[in-house]
Order: sequence, then structure tokens, then C-alpha cells
Amino acid sequence: MKQEFFDLEVKTNGQKLYEFTEQTINWIEINNFKNGIINLSIQHTSASLIVQENADPDVQIDLIRFFDKLVPMDNKLYIHTIEGKDDMPAHIKSVLTNNQISLSIKDSELLLGTWQGLYLFEHRLAPQNRIIIHHFIGG
Amino acid sequence: MKQEFFDLEVKTNGQKLYEFTEQTINWIEINNFKNGIINLSIQHTSASLIVQENADPDVQIDLIRFFDKLVPMDNKLYIHTIEGKDDMPAHIKSVLTNNQISLSIKDSELLLGTWQGLYLFEHRLAPQNRIIIHHFIGG
Amino acid sequence: MKQEFFDLEVKTNGQKLYEFTEQTINWIEINNFKNGIINLSIQHTSASLIVQENADPDVQIDLIRFFDKLVPMDNKLYIHTIEGKDDMPAHIKSVLTNNQISLSIKDSELLLGTWQGLYLFEHRLAPQNRIIIHHFIGG
Repeated sequence: MKQEFFDLEVKTNGQKLYEFTEQTINWIEINNFKNGIINLSIQHTSASLIVQENADPDVQIDLIRFFDKLVPMDNKLYIHTIEGKDDMPAHIKSVLTNNQISLSIKDSELLLGTWQGLYLFEHRLAPQNRIIIHHFIGG
Repeated sequence: MKQEFFDLEVKTNGQKLYEFTEQTINWIEINNFKNGIINLSIQHTSASLIVQENADPDVQIDLIRFFDKLVPMDNKLYIHTIEGKDDMPAHIKSVLTNNQISLSIKDSELLLGTWQGLYLFEHRLAPQNRIIIHHFIGG
Repeated sequence: MKQEFFDLEVKTNGQKLYEFTEQTINWIEINNFKNGIINLSIQHTSASLIVQENADPDVQIDLIRFFDKLVPMDNKLYIHTIEGKDDMPAHIKSVLTNNQISLSIKDSELLLGTWQGLYLFEHRLAPQNRIIIHHFIGG
């Protein structure tokens, strides 16, 4: 059994979905992983990791809008407001989604669907430096 | 360390919860897995994998209703409408839930609670052919 | 490859977030785990496991309030009401969050961010006895 780690840095610039599918697949190919699990995680509670459709970019706009409406940036709704109007909504959005995903690799191939991509979903307004931890366990 | 894969096909017929606990447990028994992790994933972003109560079927009706109310099928709310009124809501529902779960096996037993079942949560209206990927890693 | 299991018991007393980061880290240290995955799961569908900010306790109050507003305890909204007004909302909240998380350990350290803590998010009003299953796989 083999284990490898890799920190992927993603610079964000506002509430958007940032795709990183290609970087993850590159890492798998370079390391020649055959079969195993990749555990992805972020060490923040104001952004998420999601698997989402990568065909029509309108899907991403609708997603961001839906979450902004569901969890409004309105300081009157929250007690925790000292870090900005977007901070408490960001924490709530991160609980509603995921900050960790486990992906399977079979015969050197990442098992994602044809229309699936890996995304960092940024919930903060100001630019951030996000680290997506990649951890492979397998053979 | 041993790894095994298995594709479970589930034919869906509308927005419902489709239980597959028994098929997963059968696969564990046939392969005689002792201890390890099963990573379950689907290669779609319009259905979810969830662990939910399997005692009272009313729980499932309430769940479906709640999600339909939270994410309405109303084309006026979304930009991405070309794949039908249920498509963008399906993407949002899949982000609000999970499309991947990791389960533990201990002493040949899948660690699910007495009242817990494994479900595919279908968000599309038209019949679909869903594949639930099973990936075992352990001994 | 080594595998270990540990059941952590948490006694809850109402809808709150119960932190257990320290107990998980203690277990890692006692067992001298170097690199691997810890799969955390609960065998209930009325409580969640989440990673959330552990700095400002107001974040937890805002989280609980948001979920209570999103999923109201109002028997008129649900069919499944026999187990109390908090039971069906608890099931829905568990689907909206997670009942399983996989964490990575690298060089004997649990990869959590500086401001991240592990929490049991209790959704029931009456006192409960919750078991958080810890399963390590690695070396």
C-alpha cells in the first residue's frame, strides 16, 4: 500500500466555482496511481468542495444565486458579524455542502462521470488563497 | 490490502428514494470482506446518495416534499432551463446532499445503524439508469 | 496496512454542537498512527457530523438558528410526526449536512485547519446517547 500527499493552491477572487479537475488528474498520472481512494479536503470553513456539472456554465451561476438567496448576506440575521457580511453565510454554506470528498481510482482512471467536474466553491467576497489537500491511499 | 469494484445498476422512475442496502450487503458477503472502507459514488449530478431512516416510509415522502419546496421547479428562477424544469433543481439538490459516501466494514459487518438504510435519491422526473459505483479497500 | 476502530460516546442534551476534536486527536496519538484515513460515522439519522469554526462560539448559535428556520418544527408541514415535532426536521437536517466524514492523517498529524473543529450536531431536543464510530485505515 502506498500513500501520497499533494497541496493544490487555488487563488480565488470572489464567489465563484473554480474547477480543478485537470490538476487532480495530472497528479494521478504523474504518480502512476492504479487503484485507490483520493481524499480531498480543505482546511477552511468558508469554502466547499463539490462535484458538479461542467457542461453548461449557467449551472454555476444558478447554483451561486440559489445559495445566496437561501443564506442571505444580511447582518441582521446573524450574531457573528465581525468578519464581514459574507462570513457567517459562508460558514452556513460550507455546512450545507461539503468540505471533503473521497474519489475512487480504478485502472489508473479517476471515476468521474462524463459531465462531472471537481470544483472549489468559494463563499467569501475578498480574494483568498485556498489549499486543496490531496491524499492518495492505494496501490 | 485488497481492492474490489462493483457497479450496481438502479433503474429509477421519478423522484423517489430507492433503497439498495441489501445489494451492498450481499456484495460484502459474497466477497468475504473483513475490515475496510466502501466508497460509494455516482457519476451524475442530478441524483444523490444518502443514508436515511428505513422504518417509516412517510419519512421519505416528507424528505422529497421538503426538497421540492426548498428548490422549486420554476423555470423563472434559473438560467439553465434547456434540460427541463427539473434539471437545475436536481443539480442544486445534489449539491445540498451527497453524491459520495464512505462506509466502514468491521468484522465482516457493514456499520449501519438499526434504522439506517442506503438510498439513491432521484431528482429527475423521467426514468433514468443510475450506476452506483462500489469500491472496497481493506482486508 | 493497519486498521483500528474506536467508538466515542457523546451524551447530548438538546440542539447544540458538541466538539470532539480533542478525543479524536488523543486516539490518533495513543495509537501512533502515521499516515492514513479516519472514517467517522454515526449510526443515527437525526444528528450530523460536521467540520466547523471553533473560534467564535456565536457561529454555532447562528448555525443552529439558521437550520431551525430552514426546517421548522411545525407538525403541519410533515406526515411523519409520531416521534415528536423535532424528529422529521432532524432527519431533513441530517440529509442537508453529513453523517460521515473522512479525515486525512499525515506525519502523525490530523489535517484540520487552525480554526477547524470536529462537531456532533445534535438535532433532537431530548437527551441522546450518540456513538461516533472512528475507523482508521493506513500505516
